[in-house]
Amino acid sequence: MAGLTGTGPTHGSEVDRACAAAAQAAPAWARASRAERAAVLRGIADALESRASDIVPVADRETALGEARLTGELTRTCYQLRLFAEVLDEGAYLEAAVDHAGDTAMGPRPDLRRMLVPLGPVAVFGASNFPLAFSVPGGDTASALAAGCPVVVKAHPAHPDTSALCFEIMSAALGDRYAGVLGIVAGEQAGVELVEHPVVRAVGFTGSLAGGRALADRAAARPEPIPFYGELGSINAVVVTPAAASARATDIGTGLAGSALLGAGQFCTKPGLAFVPSGAEGDALRDAVAAAARDKSFTMLTERIAHSYRDGAAALRTLEVSTPVVADDASGDAVTATVLEIDVADLAANEVFLDEVFGPLTVLVRYGAVDDVLPVLRGLPGALTATIHAEPDDPDGGRLATVLQEVAGRLVWNGFPTGVAVSWAQHHGGPWPATNNSVHTSVGATSIRRWLRPFAWQNAPEAVLPDELRDGPVGVPRRVDSVLRLPER
Amino acid sequence: MAGLTGTGPTHGSEVDRACAAAAQAAPAWARASRAERAAVLRGIADALESRASDIVPVADRETALGEARLTGELTRTCYQLRLFAEVLDEGAYLEAAVDHAGDTAMGPRPDLRRMLVPLGPVAVFGASNFPLAFSVPGGDTASALAAGCPVVVKAHPAHPDTSALCFEIMSAALGDRYAGVLGIVAGEQAGVELVEHPVVRAVGFTGSLAGGRALADRAAARPEPIPFYGELGSINAVVVTPAAASARATDIGTGLAGSALLGAGQFCTKPGLAFVPSGAEGDALRDAVAAAARDKSFTMLTERIAHSYRDGAAALRTLEVSTPVVADDASGDAVTATVLEIDVADLAANEVFLDEVFGPLTVLVRYGAVDDVLPVLRGLPGALTATIHAEPDDPDGGRLATVLQEVAGRLVWNGFPTGVAVSWAQHHGGPWPATNNSVHTSVGATSIRRWLRPFAWQNAPEAVLPDELRDGPVGVPRRVDSVLRLPER
Repeated sequence: MAGLTGTGPTHGSEVDRACAAAAQAAPAWARASRAERAAVLRGIADALESRASDIVPVADRETALGEARLTGELTRTCYQLRLFAEVLDEGAYLEAAVDHAGDTAMGPRPDLRRMLVPLGPVAVFGASNFPLAFSVPGGDTASALAAGCPVVVKAHPAHPDTSALCFEIMSAALGDRYAGVLGIVAGEQAGVELVEHPVVRAVGFTGSLAGGRALADRAAARPEPIPFYGELGSINAVVVTPAAASARATDIGTGLAGSALLGAGQFCTKPGLAFVPSGAEGDALRDAVAAAARDKSFTMLTERIAHSYRDGAAALRTLEVSTPVVADDASGDAVTATVLEIDVADLAANEVFLDEVFGPLTVLVRYGAVDDVLPVLRGLPGALTATIHAEPDDPDGGRLATVLQEVAGRLVWNGFPTGVAVSWAQHHGGPWPATNNSVHTSVGATSIRRWLRPFAWQNAPEAVLPDELRDGPVGVPRRVDSVLRLPER
Repeated sequence: MAGLTGTGPTHGSEVDRACAAAAQAAPAWARASRAERAAVLRGIADALESRASDIVPVADRETALGEARLTGELTRTCYQLRLFAEVLDEGAYLEAAVDHAGDTAMGPRPDLRRMLVPLGPVAVFGASNFPLAFSVPGGDTASALAAGCPVVVKAHPAHPDTSALCFEIMSAALGDRYAGVLGIVAGEQAGVELVEHPVVRAVGFTGSLAGGRALADRAAARPEPIPFYGELGSINAVVVTPAAASARATDIGTGLAGSALLGAGQFCTKPGLAFVPSGAEGDALRDAVAAAARDKSFTMLTERIAHSYRDGAAALRTLEVSTPVVADDASGDAVTATVLEIDVADLAANEVFLDEVFGPLTVLVRYGAVDDVLPVLRGLPGALTATIHAEPDDPDGGRLATVLQEVAGRLVWNGFPTGVAVSWAQHHGGPWPATNNSVHTSVGATSIRRWLRPFAWQNAPEAVLPDELRDGPVGVPRRVDSVLRLPER
């Protein structure tokens, strides 16, 4: 804890200590019943909620995100802990399957029973932009705890006191019985040591492309490689068809600005690139964006992020192909929004516009015909989201969808990409560089799958089988002799 | 094809050509309905089966595995193609989920619909030891085709003619309509180019630890990293409790030898290390292994594998701590079995015994008390399987299971690890170095998950949704508003 509260980064020995405690705690946490783990998750949610009046002010002081947003974020954080408790109660996440012994076209088959089991201790990297929902008590931690994996969090330096407070509240809720199930370390070096620590079986990371890539490379280069689940960077293209611009220019422009500036543009799903038709309707849309973005001033999460935003915005603004619509003209601690405009024909020669700029910046790409947009969309880097604004029976909607599905993880229709609901059908991931591993999600009920591995028992006596794989009604959906069955209610 | 049939390895341009054809074919194959893809898989199985009398002799000439084994392997190959057709028919593999718009404790939620979609073209590396079931028409190819991904196979040099023949039969079954859905290349350099090719979205590999690690590292080091699913090496420990040795010494010894020598020990699940009690019963078990292994002669898959087996066996046999029970004394093309004995106390200082030796070699580790075995088992490298021989109410069974579950992917009870049934509840994977990624399986119905990524549609009009995500009965198990539902029958 020392490292979190001002006396410098965590020492190597503290990483060792947290990992040793996690390893020590792992068997009991993995063996705890689903009901037991669900109760602990709900206890953590209750404890965090009951301390809202302590947590929110500390987080606001450290992040400047404001009371309303942080109160909402705490609600989200507790909601996702409780959602994972429900996932445990239901039990389908185990993918339990029983194949009784029998004859097959391949010959006799032994009794085989499969389900998912916890990977062991995992590392979670807190994100700068969500001091609660993607940090110490966030979705990665919640899903890993639900899976039965102890978690060592690498706290983000942007909110050390929030991290320490949440850790303290969560540790108390875990109690002596599960001491070591949650650990915390701080400092860049501690993060590297964590990814390379022999005890750690997987890593969850939300952060920058450069930082994530460096850690992913280390995870892959270990003597025993481990899965690295990184959410890294995303441009989140929005495409407005001519018909949509014609019908809703002002609404779309205002909504786009709202999404791009929400939380000072410090969301992984911020729309960074919007394809807008040329002509009068597109101009009206642009003017609506400008009107909503002008004179808006923001305090960024950290000075470093503010610097980085200013540098990124300046680099794009000063290119000859770009026209400033709204320019950042603030100085000191505050920044203002940046809206730029370029022609679609100039995008190919200026790929820098495809890189994410973290902060309140969005680029309007003006186009004459949808046919000129499609090849550009095909070449976009992978993204968490892509958005289409189209009218009913708009012939452009379908063909845009076909192309955008290849380069994104979520397709938003007539809406905006910020605001990531936590639910069963949510997906938060996507082709590189949205994530380093497009096959998993970091938000929603199915994110628990990242921390589990399949295991099969062959001809095992009932005594060594987990409850969910025994004969008779076991209360979870499972596949028996190839047929998926629901528990009786 | 040139490279497969004697005119040298595939050139870079051939890799490009196969990848370009796969990319070209990908949209139509991904869009094909589940019923259509299932029909194609069944058509491939039928075609392979109808050519059994052509395939088996060619494979036998190239591998020396014998007609019976290869006929069985072809049955397995067709069985798994048909199993994946059933997986498609049923549709649960899509993990379809629909969350209708509504209010939640987090606020209003949009309409969200999620399912798994194909990754795009993938590369599959054929294995030396299964010219059919883990090669061109093998499980990786079958599962990827089922998922909707075109496949470019890197043919194994140990059976080029078998590979070319299977490719020809499968291509004819795919027909002009799906030309490019299956491609083939040959040569080590072509394999490297395939893993690094921008078109390739994932890799399936079955082979050596060194080769697999090198390719996994390349997959991770790509500008856009891709998932690499490697099955690499496995020691497959067998532990015989004192009670089991006392009750069934001869049966266990004979069975162990049979499993270790099956297919000349050229199985990834070959038991390489067997913990056997000291004393008379353990001696009887050892003698049964020796009796079954003595004077057995084998032709290995390739000369290189024969050399490597001889070198590996000699390196272990000549160590002072090891006692030869049965020694390889053959020369030339044939090899004979090797059975060695060491004391459990010598294992820690001689970790070389924990490395897989591919071929008919097994090491008997003699122990005095199960308590001396447990710490050794905890330190074992990850494996595909671990096996326990124990009696009913044997107090040692449970504690061995607890330890072995941490280091393996499948726990076999009173049996032997060779013989990997293809079914829903099978798992073929495990902690490093059994696989580079312990979270996936390479055998069984769930192996299809490797070639899919989640995708979510938000507020999308019905016309752009896949059939399985539309409202109304859609004929697949799916989760609607958090509740898992089965289709009506």
